[in-house]
Amino acid sequence: MTHPDAFDVLISEVGPRDGLQSVKATMPTADKQRWIDALAAAGLREIEVASFVPARLLPQMADAAQVVQHARQHAQVRVMALVPNLQGAQHALEAGAQKLTLPVSASPAHSLANVRKTPEDMVQEVAAVLRLRDIVAPGVPVEVGMSTAFGCTLQGPVPEDDVLRLAQQLAAIGVDEIGLSDTTGMANPAQVSRLFKRMFQEIGPLTGAAHMHNTRGLGLANCLAAYEAGVRTFDSSLAGLGGCPYAPGASGNVVTEDLVFMFEAMGVSTGVDWARLVAAREALKAGLPGEPLYGMSPEAGLPRGWNRQIN
Amino acid sequence: MTHPDAFDVLISEVGPRDGLQSVKATMPTADKQRWIDALAAAGLREIEVASFVPARLLPQMADAAQVVQHARQHAQVRVMALVPNLQGAQHALEAGAQKLTLPVSASPAHSLANVRKTPEDMVQEVAAVLRLRDIVAPGVPVEVGMSTAFGCTLQGPVPEDDVLRLAQQLAAIGVDEIGLSDTTGMANPAQVSRLFKRMFQEIGPLTGAAHMHNTRGLGLANCLAAYEAGVRTFDSSLAGLGGCPYAPGASGNVVTEDLVFMFEAMGVSTGVDWARLVAAREALKAGLPGEPLYGMSPEAGLPRGWNRQIN
Repeated sequence: MTHPDAFDVLISEVGPRDGLQSVKATMPTADKQRWIDALAAAGLREIEVASFVPARLLPQMADAAQVVQHARQHAQVRVMALVPNLQGAQHALEAGAQKLTLPVSASPAHSLANVRKTPEDMVQEVAAVLRLRDIVAPGVPVEVGMSTAFGCTLQGPVPEDDVLRLAQQLAAIGVDEIGLSDTTGMANPAQVSRLFKRMFQEIGPLTGAAHMHNTRGLGLANCLAAYEAGVRTFDSSLAGLGGCPYAPGASGNVVTEDLVFMFEAMGVSTGVDWARLVAAREALKAGLPGEPLYGMSPEAGLPRGWNRQIN
Repeated sequence: MTHPDAFDVLISEVGPRDGLQSVKATMPTADKQRWIDALAAAGLREIEVASFVPARLLPQMADAAQVVQHARQHAQVRVMALVPNLQGAQHALEAGAQKLTLPVSASPAHSLANVRKTPEDMVQEVAAVLRLRDIVAPGVPVEVGMSTAFGCTLQGPVPEDDVLRLAQQLAAIGVDEIGLSDTTGMANPAQVSRLFKRMFQEIGPLTGAAHMHNTRGLGLANCLAAYEAGVRTFDSSLAGLGGCPYAPGASGNVVTEDLVFMFEAMGVSTGVDWARLVAAREALKAGLPGEPLYGMSPEAGLPRGWNRQIN
């Protein structure tokens, strides 16, 4: 979906959900709230703050409703929640989530392993969520982030036609936004460009976010390719939180600080204040002591003469 | 210069010169030679193996002639040497270097600090090198790598017109190839694209390598932008050797392993065998024990189904 505000791109911060979900430690609720406050203060306008799953499966997200309610205090932030199914959607909407995101895997192998459902079954689940949304919260957009769209660690390559067919099915049932996720960092810029261009051809403005991982170092290059293909929403996480468990030292999500630096340096406005974003790392550090923080631009600082940058 | 061989791009490995010059330790000659052998075995076709500067200034490069002579054993490798001036060029050509590269800074402040000469004086020095080359080694190409082309830590922004004017002066005196270097990692993809496109407009096929740094995480994105602008030669160093002394943890040069992974994944042939490249890290490790090795793709490995990659 084209972002309707005054900036060129929308950075959708996923750290408090996607990032936290990938680390072992549980961040106390108050720390999550302070971290979200710091992210909001940096100018982020969309934050995925929690996942509505049973607390016994993911104790890290047991306070999802509280976190959503707190985040709602920031009027300029769209508070997004991940929901894996209809029940999660019920709870998220009750808590006041302003946007829902559902993961639907393009790889049947990954889908079965992850949610014990085929992609087709997941389309039916999304349809049920849409019906619920239409009744109880008609103004809340429902996004699907299509996992393993660029390859799967179980299946290997994922045919592009499979991705497009699934996107069309999701568009047909009324999903508001369909993004593509490089769940395990297998994408390359040529593939990203090709696949997003096909998405725009097939489902037009329903084409959503690029959710890239930096597993093999190509995160920003893939975001650049997506931008050039027309994508205007980008998922990333502060300090790259969400490391790949199987690749120590290889960060998972694209680092928000570096992504914002890249776009702002290019003259592409994000609405995000880079220095305040870097300051928000302190809140993350306080809530997750000892967790490694990734990112190159925070180490190096802004280039000399940044304000006079010739763009 | 368009690369005349069978592959889509030329990866010019700069680790044994640029990388080693940036680390404190001195690598023994035999270890350098084994490392260069491993790089050659990986299929690299251009390697910057040494810098011809007085040994009292740079003890790390005291064995430059021996290293060049050894590297010449690899028939498929073009053996490149950095020379800062006419005297260095004499020694490099005597030793058998097959390509010379001279650094000329686009920023007068950086030029004076680095070589105590203005950019204009450096153009005269390059002219002297070209005259020498014409007499003693007419087949040896002379490249200029234009430092600080994208910004300078002393001067701040560098006007693009200054870069283009300097490139035209260098082209006029007969330099074979003029590349642009992001010496301190200040470039962004929009700037890289714009500047290289202007280079192709103004000096056409004399446009040379993109030498990008990863200081702020944009190394590969900048290489992608340069590729899209028409650049076909890319400087990089194995394991990103050549860290920025002022930014601990921020690697300097683009990591050859990740760059090769990106291009090969895109279907852009490099002629380099990624697995053998990763194996060459062992030779680097042996010669520089304890030195940090960068690179994401070596940590994560190739994606599942790499051979069946859909490109």
